[in-house]
Amino acid sequence: MLNVIGVEGLPEVVPGDDLAALIADAVDGALEDGDILAVTSKVVSKAEGRLVAARDREDAITSQTVRVVASRTTPDGRITRIVENPLGLVMAAAGVDGSNVPDGYVLLLPEDPDASAQAIAVRVRERTGLRIGVVISDTFGRPWRDGQTDLAIGAAGIHVLDDLRGGVDDNGRALQVTAAAIADEIASAADLVKGKTSRMPLAIVRGLAHLVGGLDLPGARAIVRLGAADMFRVGSEEAWREGYEAGVRAARDERGD
Amino acid sequence: MLNVIGVEGLPEVVPGDDLAALIADAVDGALEDGDILAVTSKVVSKAEGRLVAARDREDAITSQTVRVVASRTTPDGRITRIVENPLGLVMAAAGVDGSNVPDGYVLLLPEDPDASAQAIAVRVRERTGLRIGVVISDTFGRPWRDGQTDLAIGAAGIHVLDDLRGGVDDNGRALQVTAAAIADEIASAADLVKGKTSRMPLAIVRGLAHLVGGLDLPGARAIVRLGAADMFRVGSEEAWREGYEAGVRAARDERGD
Repeated sequence: MLNVIGVEGLPEVVPGDDLAALIADAVDGALEDGDILAVTSKVVSKAEGRLVAARDREDAITSQTVRVVASRTTPDGRITRIVENPLGLVMAAAGVDGSNVPDGYVLLLPEDPDASAQAIAVRVRERTGLRIGVVISDTFGRPWRDGQTDLAIGAAGIHVLDDLRGGVDDNGRALQVTAAAIADEIASAADLVKGKTSRMPLAIVRGLAHLVGGLDLPGARAIVRLGAADMFRVGSEEAWREGYEAGVRAARDERGD
Repeated sequence: MLNVIGVEGLPEVVPGDDLAALIADAVDGALEDGDILAVTSKVVSKAEGRLVAARDREDAITSQTVRVVASRTTPDGRITRIVENPLGLVMAAAGVDGSNVPDGYVLLLPEDPDASAQAIAVRVRERTGLRIGVVISDTFGRPWRDGQTDLAIGAAGIHVLDDLRGGVDDNGRALQVTAAAIADEIASAADLVKGKTSRMPLAIVRGLAHLVGGLDLPGARAIVRLGAADMFRVGSEEAWREGYEAGVRAARDERGD
């Protein structure tokens, strides 16, 4: 049995707030051992002063872009940019958030969401004496599927991957499914309760105590897969264009041009 | 509040079983109005006789491949193929399942999982008189992230996308986040309870009655996005190679070769 309980009562978060303390207050008396707190990245960013003035949202996206993965002009003339951001996350608009912020401002993702999760976990564990975990989530699109789901961008005190590699099936054969992305599934489950426009950035996920562990467990950064194992380094059109230019050069070199 | 309740008591499913009736029996007395049943595709496939003899799993994958999206040889010499299958799903190994099946057999995905979900929803609604929804899930890898999550491959009686397009944020500005992929988030939430090796292919998801609707709502096929909107039609390496060959041809044509 899994329960996801939305938490009311977190005040409007402003820069400089001690978010860990606010969260500890909001869940005071409601937590049980083995609970996992799911926190929307937006409140973490706000507390950490990541609301920045931006003449233009596009400039802000550029500032958060390590590498453009794919970009397209949509039929209504807007540019969609899928980029790798400084956290290694491949996201539309680099994760720069322009909704529910004052005019002329954008909200950047937390600078180190695993550290943010760690700070919250430490504080809540100290306050309650309970072994709890923390997931910080943000909203992602995906290739090949419409719509967005919430995934984990920060985590502390939980096994982010339930690694079955080396495990066997009921017939004793090696399992082909290797590792359930637990932290991402928790973020998605919590989003079903927290929703999008409601002011409920915090939920308690109960029933996964077996996935809660030490504060030295790897954070959500461990889920990021880039480099050689990444089959989708850049969009198809970008890769095609790179290949085309290389092909033209190769054919000309062959001719001694 | 969201509850995900694993359902015990579904018998081992064999070809020809009336799965809708078995599920209706297993949840008898446990359902409430507005519940959503999350069903692992594996039992649907088994009931529908999708366990097929296969000399070789690779041949079975080829038979389920509409189009190769990307393929790589892993360091241990195995070939990973990401393909589009007949359902429009882009998946590793086309969704062909070789675990927990007899030697010499593989399990294919249901032929029409939206229709399978519909059949279950109709039967359970008739039996109970309750307005319930159904999601059929399978396990997917993803670009840029390690691990797998469960997503919806079939659905009936629910809003698969919680469409906020045209909506406004708390400041009255157009929402940039467009549509939460509810059906996928439900599949992921249910996977946290159903797990991978346990024999629990069925869960009740309670607390989302506002997302349950008529049996004429679009199924999970509506989540599939391919064609012009797909920036990742093929893997980067595949696209690069296509582009390279086109570049070589273009340079040669230019020379009149």
